[in-house]
Amino acid sequence: MEKPTILLIGTCDTKLPELLYTISQCPDSTNILLMDVGRTPTLHPLISIQHPDLTTTTTTKENKENEETKNNGEVIRKEEEYKSLPRTTYIQKISNHATTTTADLYKAGRIHAILSLGGSCGTNIATAAMRQGVPVGFPKLMVSTMASGDVSSYIEETDITLMYSVVDVAGGNWILKRVLGNALFGAVGMALREFTFQKDRIGRDVEGSVGKNGGDGGDGGKKRVGVTMFGVTTPCVDVIRERLEREYGAEVYVFHATGAGGKAMERLVREGQIDAVVDLTTSEVVDELMGGVLSAGPARLEAAAKKGIPQVVSVGACEMANFGPPSTIPPRYEGRVLYEHNPTVTLVRANAEESRQIARFIAEKLRTFAVRPDLIRLVLPTGGISMVDVPGQSFYDPEVDEVLFSTIEKELQGSGISITRDPRHINDPDFATSVADMLGGMITSM
Amino acid sequence: MEKPTILLIGTCDTKLPELLYTISQCPDSTNILLMDVGRTPTLHPLISIQHPDLTTTTTTKENKENEETKNNGEVIRKEEEYKSLPRTTYIQKISNHATTTTADLYKAGRIHAILSLGGSCGTNIATAAMRQGVPVGFPKLMVSTMASGDVSSYIEETDITLMYSVVDVAGGNWILKRVLGNALFGAVGMALREFTFQKDRIGRDVEGSVGKNGGDGGDGGKKRVGVTMFGVTTPCVDVIRERLEREYGAEVYVFHATGAGGKAMERLVREGQIDAVVDLTTSEVVDELMGGVLSAGPARLEAAAKKGIPQVVSVGACEMANFGPPSTIPPRYEGRVLYEHNPTVTLVRANAEESRQIARFIAEKLRTFAVRPDLIRLVLPTGGISMVDVPGQSFYDPEVDEVLFSTIEKELQGSGISITRDPRHINDPDFATSVADMLGGMITSM
Repeated sequence: MEKPTILLIGTCDTKLPELLYTISQCPDSTNILLMDVGRTPTLHPLISIQHPDLTTTTTTKENKENEETKNNGEVIRKEEEYKSLPRTTYIQKISNHATTTTADLYKAGRIHAILSLGGSCGTNIATAAMRQGVPVGFPKLMVSTMASGDVSSYIEETDITLMYSVVDVAGGNWILKRVLGNALFGAVGMALREFTFQKDRIGRDVEGSVGKNGGDGGDGGKKRVGVTMFGVTTPCVDVIRERLEREYGAEVYVFHATGAGGKAMERLVREGQIDAVVDLTTSEVVDELMGGVLSAGPARLEAAAKKGIPQVVSVGACEMANFGPPSTIPPRYEGRVLYEHNPTVTLVRANAEESRQIARFIAEKLRTFAVRPDLIRLVLPTGGISMVDVPGQSFYDPEVDEVLFSTIEKELQGSGISITRDPRHINDPDFATSVADMLGGMITSM
Repeated sequence: MEKPTILLIGTCDTKLPELLYTISQCPDSTNILLMDVGRTPTLHPLISIQHPDLTTTTTTKENKENEETKNNGEVIRKEEEYKSLPRTTYIQKISNHATTTTADLYKAGRIHAILSLGGSCGTNIATAAMRQGVPVGFPKLMVSTMASGDVSSYIEETDITLMYSVVDVAGGNWILKRVLGNALFGAVGMALREFTFQKDRIGRDVEGSVGKNGGDGGDGGKKRVGVTMFGVTTPCVDVIRERLEREYGAEVYVFHATGAGGKAMERLVREGQIDAVVDLTTSEVVDELMGGVLSAGPARLEAAAKKGIPQVVSVGACEMANFGPPSTIPPRYEGRVLYEHNPTVTLVRANAEESRQIARFIAEKLRTFAVRPDLIRLVLPTGGISMVDVPGQSFYDPEVDEVLFSTIEKELQGSGISITRDPRHINDPDFATSVADMLGGMITSM
């Protein structure tokens, strides 16, 4: 009988006892596939997905010469390919291998959760496969010695679940057994949920993403709209959300423009899990260009353009870069207008030259990657682009904002992307309503 | 019939729809108790553990005057106590309340997992209850908008499982539903494991900790020994572990001296989950005193002394403070001997004055908190205290080490704690064997 199946990823050369303990605790209701991603291959009957050094097809003459036939008839190369690599190259290469294998298993509907356990090296490899091999929403749980610190490089914009191992993932002690048992049963529960979900699904979309509910959008076929928000644009987003939900029957996903948030939205767009976007708060671009702490990387604004989905883009909070306490602000910003949001968050006001660069970044991304420029609306609230960019507030600077606006207009000339100037400020409820209606008009005709 | 029960902690004033959605997905096999930790109380039939403002007994006359009887007969105070508090005070106070309630439920055997979902505020409150209300090993899962960054303040030295929500925890969108569904089923699985575990247990130890297997130590009544390790003391720890396991039938728990590691060991000692300690690598003290990045806080070395369990203490890696890249080393250490372990880890060699302070810290903790000084053995490997503190290595400095050794000896005079000088260096296998035997002798007579 078909059962929920957990893909268990581990470096079998160093963690085999812990992996086997985990398998031994698995209830009959659930299957486990063990994938070996160690540096050197391990032979064990419970390893379902063998190390690539044991399975890679080798057809050239040169490689043939490096093979020998083992007693049990398996072909093993004399020079272990991965073993001879430098550590970082090994991690990179085996991560790619694990990602491909994981993606294949996922697309074939053969797995319902991913579980892994490891130290620094194992966490790197397994979370790469979790991030790149399966979409957001698919269960993924990592037991790690590295889970009580800065975990952003492991998680990025995904829903990887991290469990701190407390003790070293080595040896069969009682604490580790309890932690591994909890992790296994967590994965068993999640796999059951995913198994039921996959069975209930009517179909898959073209890319095999499980995000679409029967390929028909969100709950009951609703259009799924991503909206980017920041504290200083929250009043606008509240109105947009409410209007899109009430007037257009949309399902709204709000993403905080914190770096991870913008990346998460772009990932969900790529995965086909979001149908349209109100990219109101593009301030992660400022952090990317000014060295702030909330950058979403250099690929921001590409996903929706490439996907050709309807989007309204604006320049919310595009006058501010985010830093930590004042002492962490780079010396090059000395003398700038600062805004101390709280003891750990300080904002730097962008100047005219920076605003020009911000405008160019946004315009260039849209112009370069838009496959459907007719579905992109750029809207510029000339009355102010954040809560602190209005008369009487410290970041209010219409002259610098004008550089931002006019540069965008200039750079997008002839692109086929429509641009609107709106004299109201971004948090004016009527501005927000007009933005919602702009997108609403596009999604109702989808 | 008795069922596995999940304690669901949430701020019902802001997250009620998401909490109710989670409850609605729960399979019949499992119960959910919903605890309200919001700023303002919420009345809802599915809230099992009401907000303290609704339930706090008020007996003084002054308080009586602030009460009114509601239509449904419930007594509610006119001035909501928590609502009127500043945000940070509210978080602190409600966290304490949630911790106490959680601990009571746990001790009564009424819960088998804790689940929570929230933003920054909710994550603060719920993880405090998870850290302080239940021991390591008890399942705890937090869905949080804050889970893709530095999570150390939420996790500390515990096995809290964190799931990044990807989208804002608000609204009923498809992604959030998948994330919450996965989290719920993860908790369902873990609660089943814990439920079975609690049923199988013969008894509890005095404090109600579930860590002890029938109150008799580790698997099969083995003595559970914590050992602190660092890269530069690994050869020593490998020998100690192997010898304790083979010759003394101990179950060994290795903790990396990374701050979280030392804290984890001390917590498990407090919880009665560790029976004896080889605190070989006390270098977290150096980071605490010199401002390094791997401090375990000012309470390091207290737990085992207070608990009166057998321990061998040494000064492994007590000549080095850990920092990030060279640029992050405080200017006061300019001109010091540095050791670049890798691009992100740089070590600073302690000088004589710092070594004196390190020695005083260790001695003072043991002297002040030892309830059984006769069960403490301090051992000083005068041949060198780490892999890089041996002749020919850059941190080798016998004169400075002598300050460390002699200060400890002086400060512990008359304490009843035995001190041994051993001329070998710390990674000498014979030194390691003698350390293992020193502890082994104490635990066999327990």
